[in-house]
Amino acid sequence: MKTENNNHLPALADTPEPPYYAVIFSTTRTEGDHGYGEMAEKMAALAATMPGYLGAESTRNEIGITVSYWKDLESIKNWKYNLEHVVARDLGREVWYQSYRLRIARVERDYGFEKK
Amino acid sequence: MKTENNNHLPALADTPEPPYYAVIFSTTRTEGDHGYGEMAEKMAALAATMPGYLGAESTRNEIGITVSYWKDLESIKNWKYNLEHVVARDLGREVWYQSYRLRIARVERDYGFEKK
Repeated sequence: MKTENNNHLPALADTPEPPYYAVIFSTTRTEGDHGYGEMAEKMAALAATMPGYLGAESTRNEIGITVSYWKDLESIKNWKYNLEHVVARDLGREVWYQSYRLRIARVERDYGFEKK
Repeated sequence: MKTENNNHLPALADTPEPPYYAVIFSTTRTEGDHGYGEMAEKMAALAATMPGYLGAESTRNEIGITVSYWKDLESIKNWKYNLEHVVARDLGREVWYQSYRLRIARVERDYGFEKK
């Protein structure tokens, strides 16, 4: 996933004032790539075209955490049942993920900091 | 931060049934360590001793994402104003973080998957 902005600094999601929703997707991977990297990029790009998408942050080391932000629960449901995403989700369970937790949360407060 | 459990698999947080709260802390770092790694470990260990702490997931690559889980807003406030944490937060803004976003969210739904 692309995580750099035009200033070559890693980008955090520039979300609007709360309330909005977060989908917190925490994962552990199976061994090997098996097309995972390509699909992850494709799904990140596809999510960004969906109605109600507000941004995402994603990083992976021993575990992966991707947090995507959405206007409302309807937008999340619409993304969940996008047909290409349904195929990717099935492959995730069959091939790529050893385990995951997916949490849907309503963001109530939001603080930001940027060093001058 | 320790991310392995006794089975030598990276650990996801074993949170209870929703509702509970998530603190999503997304960061970009300044150059160099400057004591960051040590303090991050210390704060993760300290947070785990606080009342209402339910677990945490943390990973860093281009960006860092740490999600900690809490019983309620009171527990989060109590952790926010823990004196050692206040010192660490100040150092974070002065030294370690180029930028961050901190979001407080109420987890409403939670799905899990683990490959057999």
